[in-house]
Amino acid sequence: MSFTVQIKVMPLKDLLDPQGKAVMGGLKNLGLNGVEDVRIGKNIDLRINASTEDEAKQIGEEAARKLLANPVMEIYEVTVH
Amino acid sequence: MSFTVQIKVMPLKDLLDPQGKAVMGGLKNLGLNGVEDVRIGKNIDLRINASTEDEAKQIGEEAARKLLANPVMEIYEVTVH
Repeated sequence: MSFTVQIKVMPLKDLLDPQGKAVMGGLKNLGLNGVEDVRIGKNIDLRINASTEDEAKQIGEEAARKLLANPVMEIYEVTVH
Repeated sequence: MSFTVQIKVMPLKDLLDPQGKAVMGGLKNLGLNGVEDVRIGKNIDLRINASTEDEAKQIGEEAARKLLANPVMEIYEVTVH
């Protein structure tokens, strides 16, 4: 069976996010008010062939830990759809 | 009131995603089987000060349309938490 596993990788809260700061400046210049904070990360959608949802999630977790996220600077979140 | 608006920006389904292909190769090399497809995009979390959830979502949509997503190559999805 095929599952869609979504991995969201974001910079840690305590770290500066210069890309996010730049986007916040851009939004202000466009006249979009009310934006207080911007943080930019990655979103990875995996299509995984597994027999159960749990197995798919486990493969996704392993992919995030071993390749997709850098635990020194990023947190990740794995969800199965 | 403060809302967290999440904008997910992904490459269009019909376009090649070379970054995703590279990650798929990397996962195979790590011995992670069962991964059939990988697509990589951006995830942007905005903290927006607005009076209603609808207003926050509207600001998020405008940010995506005007600055964050390129409609020629990407689709976006805005959700409010």
